[in-house]
Amino acid sequence: MKRVITIAREFGSGGRHIGQLVAEKLGYKFYDKELILLMARESGLSDKFIEEAGEKVTSSFLFNVAMGGIYLNNSYNHNAMPLSDKIFVVQNKIINQLAEEGPCVIVGRCADYILKDRDDCLNVFIHSKMEDKIKRAVEFYNIAQKNAEKEIRKKDKSRASHYYYYTGIEWGKAENYDVTLNSGSLGIEACADAICNLAK
Amino acid sequence: MKRVITIAREFGSGGRHIGQLVAEKLGYKFYDKELILLMARESGLSDKFIEEAGEKVTSSFLFNVAMGGIYLNNSYNHNAMPLSDKIFVVQNKIINQLAEEGPCVIVGRCADYILKDRDDCLNVFIHSKMEDKIKRAVEFYNIAQKNAEKEIRKKDKSRASHYYYYTGIEWGKAENYDVTLNSGSLGIEACADAICNLAK
Repeated sequence: MKRVITIAREFGSGGRHIGQLVAEKLGYKFYDKELILLMARESGLSDKFIEEAGEKVTSSFLFNVAMGGIYLNNSYNHNAMPLSDKIFVVQNKIINQLAEEGPCVIVGRCADYILKDRDDCLNVFIHSKMEDKIKRAVEFYNIAQKNAEKEIRKKDKSRASHYYYYTGIEWGKAENYDVTLNSGSLGIEACADAICNLAK
Repeated sequence: MKRVITIAREFGSGGRHIGQLVAEKLGYKFYDKELILLMARESGLSDKFIEEAGEKVTSSFLFNVAMGGIYLNNSYNHNAMPLSDKIFVVQNKIINQLAEEGPCVIVGRCADYILKDRDDCLNVFIHSKMEDKIKRAVEFYNIAQKNAEKEIRKKDKSRASHYYYYTGIEWGKAENYDVTLNSGSLGIEACADAICNLAK
């Protein structure tokens, strides 16, 4: 049984919705980007919290590179960190805590990479064709049809860069996930069922 | 219900075995690379067969590029085709015929691309980590442990080049399949079950 399910997803692929369905079906907690960001802000970007969180992620060489070597010699100056990196460090700690607390679905936030040393994780990537993503973006995100494709490409480019910056791994490559699903061709419900079955 | 399941797979990932299991579970026919190659040879690489087969695939622009433009102006000289291209043309025709005949699982041979215009196909890619592939290669293919990694990389490079040459598409990218599965982390049986469920 996989206790933690991470879902990475292209914008407009319905990956977040699939994550919610999976969480409902399995009775798991559900955490998405907004919730984790909120937790990070609330649990405080205090120096102490960041310091502790930072210690937790220093095992990652790539992460250290992203941090610009500020962890070298076991002494780092967290004041020198850009805010986005501080947030990442804190989110990292929070995601590890959430996974430890109980069964959950975590959408986005490099969770697959952050939890890569756990063997109770199922890592999922959801994608679909541009025409399907445009349809969803227009229907569910109030994006104008004429801007949709540009907006989707921009969002996905930003997700890919964020992921690569913190992990050194290419986003959306089959080999980095346990399962990737095309939500456009398979349908949202079928994707959720497939994930639930694979988690069992 | 998906009547045709195509399976592309990394060498040593157990994709062929998964295909066999899926065919058994669903009561579908099973065709792999060797069988299709045999059919291509048996149904003859006769001029007439190749000519007919060639007509069937001219709709693909990329295929024409691979063919070096020999189809331009609707007149082509099939004697000028390299043998590997003749075989591809005939295999293309055979794969289309097999898909037409009845429910089946087809492993390899760019079948996903060849059948891309059908809407009753489920396109699958199976991969796994190098350590898992080495284990399978040693156990099932009698490959010496010390040569296994080199052999696997060589085989997969050749599959990727073959696929790219005939389709212009990158092999093994999540976006080109309905589902990709890591057989090492999920297990052969779980992959087969997931495919059967998605086909239904």
